[in-house]
Amino acid sequence: MTRDALRLIALHGVPAVRPGDDLAALLRAAAQASGIVLAGGVLVVCQKIVSKAEGRVVRLADVEPSAEALRIAEQDRKDPRHVEVVLRETARVVRHAHGVWIAETRHGFVCANAGVDLSNAPGEGVAVLLPEDPDASARRLRAALVAGGAGPLGVIVSDTFGRPWREGLVDVALGCAGVAPLRDWRGQTDWAGRPLEVTAMAQADQLAAAAGLLMGKDAGLPAVWIEGAPVTEADGGIAPLLRDPKLDLFR
Amino acid sequence: MTRDALRLIALHGVPAVRPGDDLAALLRAAAQASGIVLAGGVLVVCQKIVSKAEGRVVRLADVEPSAEALRIAEQDRKDPRHVEVVLRETARVVRHAHGVWIAETRHGFVCANAGVDLSNAPGEGVAVLLPEDPDASARRLRAALVAGGAGPLGVIVSDTFGRPWREGLVDVALGCAGVAPLRDWRGQTDWAGRPLEVTAMAQADQLAAAAGLLMGKDAGLPAVWIEGAPVTEADGGIAPLLRDPKLDLFR
Repeated sequence: MTRDALRLIALHGVPAVRPGDDLAALLRAAAQASGIVLAGGVLVVCQKIVSKAEGRVVRLADVEPSAEALRIAEQDRKDPRHVEVVLRETARVVRHAHGVWIAETRHGFVCANAGVDLSNAPGEGVAVLLPEDPDASARRLRAALVAGGAGPLGVIVSDTFGRPWREGLVDVALGCAGVAPLRDWRGQTDWAGRPLEVTAMAQADQLAAAAGLLMGKDAGLPAVWIEGAPVTEADGGIAPLLRDPKLDLFR
Repeated sequence: MTRDALRLIALHGVPAVRPGDDLAALLRAAAQASGIVLAGGVLVVCQKIVSKAEGRVVRLADVEPSAEALRIAEQDRKDPRHVEVVLRETARVVRHAHGVWIAETRHGFVCANAGVDLSNAPGEGVAVLLPEDPDASARRLRAALVAGGAGPLGVIVSDTFGRPWREGLVDVALGCAGVAPLRDWRGQTDWAGRPLEVTAMAQADQLAAAAGLLMGKDAGLPAVWIEGAPVTEADGGIAPLLRDPKLDLFR
């Protein structure tokens, strides 16, 4: 398949993931059952199943809310234990208004609730946190898939984020391995020979967004294979997509 | 092709577009030459060729910069005629710092330079503006394609925008016809029967981002067919993706 065509296929049969599960084995089996050959493309995996497999879950019953969490929960009409977990995952508050908590995480992501999610959790009263190091998650998953027989492939760990100015959520990349996060056009010319003003496309985010089209929230499709997506040997991770806060006009 | 698979194919052979060109005819010919049947999918078309066909171009030689444009151009080291065109397209300045001009356009888009682009312009010293009404552009294109024999399809007019917090550009939808811009999961339950917290996915933006993966900036691939993308009869347009400025925490 050439660079001017891509095929996206959802992996069927990924079961509910629990802490300690061998995620690579589950994904390999689901790919096989879906008729997908994991070679020459990028596998996009929803953050939530990665976090669950890695045990990044917190039982709300075990959480003791701080005074600050109690105050914010009262103001925003939320569960103080949820707020407490969000506070622990927050490195910097970017905005807090109308009950919306936009925070920068320790990784440098800016998102609602510092990425702490309550929906689809494995059992009631459980918060799912972002992976400790989503690049490392992607690298491990890629290495395990290759060790299990997969061909050259990239892996993206994706999550669903809101955005300023526009309604609706889009999927973005939290971590990657074997994928160039940016596709850089600087120094190149267009087809008429003029220098390109566009600098770099956020390729990993565009791949995550594409995969998001098939990640039905109701149907349990937490992984999508993108056949034909460009693979690299580089394992550099997502850092080039995270803007330096000092250069950011909105932080 | 079911809802759990999509195929993206770039249209080859779209020529350089000039004001007054019949864009639907050019795209129909390119699709045919690329072996694409325009039915049961969404055609994503880069804003620039839509604007060119609609004559939304300004020769910089014809532009008389205002005093404000001269002042900003001096400060930001830009062409004052370019700045003048940007000012005319700006409904509200959202941020202006480090030579970056983030503006809200009359349509309600927030983007750099109010969407005015100098690169790849048809001849030197030409600015390309956003379409007057990108939804109307998408509707006209869709109607002309259907009149020319295409089956049920959606059309998205896309552009390449930067974002707060993250580096790299992503493609987003400026206008649409025959595509639901939001995919709403509210009121539904997940596969375990729990109510979904995620509200709505920005489906039109995810389709634009997916198509952007194949819109090589150097290769003259300004249109991408997404086979299997969901089509609707609705012609409601992009409005549901534009956040009310009063509810926006970043405006």
